Amino acid sequence: MKIWLTMLIAAISINLSANELKLDNSLAYKLTESLTVEVGPRIAGSAADERAVVWAEKNLTALGYDKVWREAFDMPYWQRGAASLTVKAPFHQSLVVTALGGSIATPVNGIDSNVVMFASLEQLKQATAKNVKGKIVFINTSMEKDQEGNFYGEVVGVRSQGAIEAAKLGAQAVIIRSVGTSLNRFAHTGVMRYSDKVTRIPAAAISVPDAIQLEKMLALEPNLSLHLTMQNKLPGTVKSHNVIAEITGSTRPDEIVLISAHLDSWDQGTGALDDAAGVGLVMAVGALIKQQGRPERTIRVVLFGNEEGGLLGAKAYAAKHANNLDKHVFASESDFGADRIWRLDSGVGEKSLAFIADLHKKLAHLDISLGNNDAYGGPDVSVLKALGVPVVTLLQDGTDYFDYHHTANDTFDKVNAEALAQNLAAWIITTKAVANSDIDLRQ
Amino acid sequence: MKIWLTMLIAAISINLSANELKLDNSLAYKLTESLTVEVGPRIAGSAADERAVVWAEKNLTALGYDKVWREAFDMPYWQRGAASLTVKAPFHQSLVVTALGGSIATPVNGIDSNVVMFASLEQLKQATAKNVKGKIVFINTSMEKDQEGNFYGEVVGVRSQGAIEAAKLGAQAVIIRSVGTSLNRFAHTGVMRYSDKVTRIPAAAISVPDAIQLEKMLALEPNLSLHLTMQNKLPGTVKSHNVIAEITGSTRPDEIVLISAHLDSWDQGTGALDDAAGVGLVMAVGALIKQQGRPERTIRVVLFGNEEGGLLGAKAYAAKHANNLDKHVFASESDFGADRIWRLDSGVGEKSLAFIADLHKKLAHLDISLGNNDAYGGPDVSVLKALGVPVVTLLQDGTDYFDYHHTANDTFDKVNAEALAQNLAAWIITTKAVANSDIDLRQ
Repeated sequence: MKIWLTMLIAAISINLSANELKLDNSLAYKLTESLTVEVGPRIAGSAADERAVVWAEKNLTALGYDKVWREAFDMPYWQRGAASLTVKAPFHQSLVVTALGGSIATPVNGIDSNVVMFASLEQLKQATAKNVKGKIVFINTSMEKDQEGNFYGEVVGVRSQGAIEAAKLGAQAVIIRSVGTSLNRFAHTGVMRYSDKVTRIPAAAISVPDAIQLEKMLALEPNLSLHLTMQNKLPGTVKSHNVIAEITGSTRPDEIVLISAHLDSWDQGTGALDDAAGVGLVMAVGALIKQQGRPERTIRVVLFGNEEGGLLGAKAYAAKHANNLDKHVFASESDFGADRIWRLDSGVGEKSLAFIADLHKKLAHLDISLGNNDAYGGPDVSVLKALGVPVVTLLQDGTDYFDYHHTANDTFDKVNAEALAQNLAAWIITTKAVANSDIDLRQ
Repeated sequence: MKIWLTMLIAAISINLSANELKLDNSLAYKLTESLTVEVGPRIAGSAADERAVVWAEKNLTALGYDKVWREAFDMPYWQRGAASLTVKAPFHQSLVVTALGGSIATPVNGIDSNVVMFASLEQLKQATAKNVKGKIVFINTSMEKDQEGNFYGEVVGVRSQGAIEAAKLGAQAVIIRSVGTSLNRFAHTGVMRYSDKVTRIPAAAISVPDAIQLEKMLALEPNLSLHLTMQNKLPGTVKSHNVIAEITGSTRPDEIVLISAHLDSWDQGTGALDDAAGVGLVMAVGALIKQQGRPERTIRVVLFGNEEGGLLGAKAYAAKHANNLDKHVFASESDFGADRIWRLDSGVGEKSLAFIADLHKKLAHLDISLGNNDAYGGPDVSVLKALGVPVVTLLQDGTDYFDYHHTANDTFDKVNAEALAQNLAAWIITTKAVANSDIDLRQ
């Protein structure tokens, strides 16, 4: 056990009575630092993913969890290769490009083709094959900032569906403007989809400044051509793992209060905001609650594998635990960065709204408002919610999240220790409230 | 001639009398855009550098300059190659790295070695060979922000002298924390030096977040080793050019008012702030002044070549024009980004301070204060100042300059049109004041 961990746990003495919660602890922050420094990028299926699993098991054990185990699942492994995108005559410039997750490679010598720009996926869908066939499609949709991250949902279809729609019209490849809100020159990766009904074509993203630049070039020279190379590999099926740990409940140990984050990350940054901060947070929550006395219900920490590739760990968890989901009395996930929590949303039965209102009173001193009852609980937990598990979302301020998300710039220095401590307080209050209650949130 | 240029020049009608200067013109901004979009990165000696020279000649002619010509000089050409830096066991991570300008390559298979960290160049100088020999030296000096950019001068010695000092103690290579102020994950390039007295070793920079990361790793594992590869090339001597254009003076054409910027840029970004904005600015100044009537003295725009490699264009200019420098009545350069000008500094004779004070009165409405008489006029112009040419510095706010400077993130979207328009107004007022006066600023 690391010295700092021992010292920290010994030093932490949180008094959760009334509003006297102390916010000066840093266990979640220290765990986030440890994962990002010692493991770093950990794309699902890779050797780094396995090192992250070992890191999680070791640290969950050191934190005093009663049980720690891993659950394997199969997944298709995708490896990023070198990528380049060059604008040909008359401009002769390189653009900052990254492969979208899951994309096939280009031929070894790359693709040389004219480029045709569309302002949106919708505009591409309305195009004719005549204007697209044989070309590289460039979808140049910009994204605004907002606290709830709603714009991401509106724009991300460009990333997930772009290759399908471009291929339907005979395009050779698709490049998209990064689904992000920063003018910093990082290209934003993320999972993309193929359809069995159309040809698979390479798909990549360019940074926002490069999208602006390419648009300006096209205004000067509509017949511009590009040279795209990407050497991604799809080696086949490998195993990844969910890592699970429990603080066993004192009086109702079979009732599971599930708190979660995802252990995998994209490979460009160190996955600090997405989602090491969530991992550090939920690992700390269970450990700190146990320090204050065993909860009545069992607190189960689930660190999902392969969230980024399409919630594969969550789906595997739901399948494996299908017969026991009725004993999952609650689930929530932290996977929206590490900024301050500003709203509590729930996804519970109508009769439980009084419990949620009471919970909100306990959170109000942390400057958290009460939202709606439409919460999905987080990406992985949405799989459980669909199967009837009650959820809450402790909604973080996502205004700046998409400045860093899925880029090389998602690194530990972007994590705000003070905001993460506020998250920790809110999560401890919430988790304790459910774990020490006999509320049936399905009602 | 481009249509927008024709339309712009036709549309611009600046009334410079008193404080009625209109700030709504965008010629400097449009020229900056044109250079960064149409030419982009233009490292001295490259094909892109030659395209920039052609771009400048074409646009200076289109802008109505009376004379446009180029002056060649010889320079050692340096080409960046692929670079990688990997942290070995137990962390297995890649760091964002870039070669420093002028650095030799590593062997093809790279350098594998333990790393030893120093907080400063001074600390490295005090080290013993025993602790450094055979290792990769990591100099981890951080840089603060300030309006005048003074911190850059304090820290940049790490970049220029690091390889020399590390090699003296037998190091295999040197890597430095980027000489920059941003937490964005860009590695900052810039020229480095060798000494004929010590072995030449490869020199590179890692981004600030990567330097923070490496420091944390070394705290956990002091015996850490790194794998560094860089495939730079030094093909030998090539030609580059200064591009010069004049608005001939009406009554004292032999007296030269020199306004300048540098045409070359580093190769990672598009050199928008460094120094396309300066190029666009001074090109616009002469053209707009001519629109209002020919000045009494000759306005000479000099776009220096190879500033980044060590003021090589400026030194060539000074040598070529050595016999005529006494006719250079004034010189100034814009090479500190494109933020608002906040101070006027001069480097003139004591008797001319009244003229400077009067000039300042004409600038005060632009929120520009009067500074000192210690100005050096800009990097290239400092060569002329050392030879007796009077100068001013229209000092831009450099607070954010080193967030972008010498990185891939120095792109046109970072240029603020409004601030550049304020720059343009200040430069027109200043240049006109000198060009329509018979002041001898040497006095």
